[in-house]
Amino acid sequence: MSGIHDFIQSNLPRIESCLNETVADLNPLVKPVVSHILEAGGKRLRPMLCLLTARALGYEKDDIYPLAAALELIHSATLLHDDVLDQAELRRGKITAHLVFGVNEAVLAGDALLARASEMVTAYESLPLMRSVSRAIYWTAAGEIQEIQQLKNPSLTVDNYLEIVEGKTGYLLQTCCQSGAIVAGASEVLERSARLFGLNLGIAFQLVDDALDYSMSPTSTGKPKGGDLREGKLTLPLIFFLQQLETRKQEELLSKMKNRDLASHEQQAIIQAMEDLDLSQKTRAESERYLQIAREALHNFPNSKERLLLGEVLEYIKDRQD
Amino acid sequence: MSGIHDFIQSNLPRIESCLNETVADLNPLVKPVVSHILEAGGKRLRPMLCLLTARALGYEKDDIYPLAAALELIHSATLLHDDVLDQAELRRGKITAHLVFGVNEAVLAGDALLARASEMVTAYESLPLMRSVSRAIYWTAAGEIQEIQQLKNPSLTVDNYLEIVEGKTGYLLQTCCQSGAIVAGASEVLERSARLFGLNLGIAFQLVDDALDYSMSPTSTGKPKGGDLREGKLTLPLIFFLQQLETRKQEELLSKMKNRDLASHEQQAIIQAMEDLDLSQKTRAESERYLQIAREALHNFPNSKERLLLGEVLEYIKDRQD
Repeated sequence: MSGIHDFIQSNLPRIESCLNETVADLNPLVKPVVSHILEAGGKRLRPMLCLLTARALGYEKDDIYPLAAALELIHSATLLHDDVLDQAELRRGKITAHLVFGVNEAVLAGDALLARASEMVTAYESLPLMRSVSRAIYWTAAGEIQEIQQLKNPSLTVDNYLEIVEGKTGYLLQTCCQSGAIVAGASEVLERSARLFGLNLGIAFQLVDDALDYSMSPTSTGKPKGGDLREGKLTLPLIFFLQQLETRKQEELLSKMKNRDLASHEQQAIIQAMEDLDLSQKTRAESERYLQIAREALHNFPNSKERLLLGEVLEYIKDRQD
Repeated sequence: MSGIHDFIQSNLPRIESCLNETVADLNPLVKPVVSHILEAGGKRLRPMLCLLTARALGYEKDDIYPLAAALELIHSATLLHDDVLDQAELRRGKITAHLVFGVNEAVLAGDALLARASEMVTAYESLPLMRSVSRAIYWTAAGEIQEIQQLKNPSLTVDNYLEIVEGKTGYLLQTCCQSGAIVAGASEVLERSARLFGLNLGIAFQLVDDALDYSMSPTSTGKPKGGDLREGKLTLPLIFFLQQLETRKQEELLSKMKNRDLASHEQQAIIQAMEDLDLSQKTRAESERYLQIAREALHNFPNSKERLLLGEVLEYIKDRQD
């Protein structure tokens, strides 16, 4: 997988410098909050997908970097808000921003980032681009909302959950690929393929993430195994677990999760039972369906080095262990 | 003032129906939160200013209503977030949304509204319009941020405060008038006049609002007199009050406000002292400077019925008692 590694290495400095320039220009109160969330790192998956799609579809100019950076900023803004809403304590091993700087600061930094990112996108003077980004922001919020709503509903099905994932993770990744296609002036058919590729890659990415939460060692996630269970998050591995319980036990577990009333030994027992049932693996198997749709969408792209790299991204998601 | 009253009466149903259509289309979890904040009412000042400016500059088509409604939705989104951040309990006599529906719901409803409003603006296919709206959202958040920041700074000057007001209230009202001008295809000079008019009207509006907080009867505001003092908000009347205290007393009061440690009898004594010093009136006098700049900007508009009505809005702001 050195191809994608080389691509990231050679493009990351440009992305980081766009991010740093934007941060430097923010209000002094927001600046440290935004720096904190950006320094937590992550894979810069969103900018890389925008860049790779644009290059794969023949766009060679360098003025695409601020757009790629804007997409990362939108992602960071949603992380700031999510961590407040989830009352999360750690993100990638670092104390979350709202605990370091305060809830008000984290909420407003998210608002300011969303607005600033929209402004950066406006500079491209493309209405389809603006529309795609506004919609992605709306659907990301709507996905989070649905997630909260579903926690109050004990009969969450796999389909409901996939709809939530489509919203909270899929649409922004769809927009990352679509925006690369728009900037490249791609045909309608290719733009549609880029959308399909991004959306399905996004769903698969989230499902693998959910699987990893129950299978990784604490050192690599920066948080203990089963963090989603502790935070009361209903993800696919846990839905599978609930499905094989009898109704009374289902209701008992959901009610304890909702009230954050699950004792530590109960959590451990559930996590162990899930391991015995191999539910992380079952979740990864589910993600394969979406990876396959993404692979097929990619076939429509013209042959290029970057098309191969986009294919590598899919394999990276499939196999990732951290 | 029947002219402006008639204008509002004849245009309000169209604005309300656009607002209702947008709400109907939102995610079921967000819908009641947004309805709650919209039903708290208010004067729909922002849509009316957009509409009046567009009409004054010769735009006659009815496709402007969704834009006017989008500006009200942006305002509503900022109110939802502000009330969370201020831990406010009442807005216009109604329990605030985060207390009725939950903090998470209120934050996400705000996010979803901002994104949906941006999408509505995108439909006008005008980049200057998009840019103006994105900037207004950014500056509104930045103004709020500065407000929080300044509370930590005991030496807040009148100039610092006016800068905050420019951000948290002025820029969105500037964008309301500017967007009416953009839709009307106004010349650069007229668009600039519309911006100046909106910004200065906005600053004056906020200052009168600050003055009213210390001078109104509880029945008309829906909250007790001096609510800003209780919520730890440093507004212009209180800055005037602080200015005539000796340094030690200033620091004592600010520290008590910051820690929400001001006893009820102390609050009453301060409110009474401020009344004796006529600081509400002094604040209103300060707003007159901005009203005058707005009046002058309005002189550049061509003569029309709506120009007269925009002038009436300024007089309404000057004289308003609730």
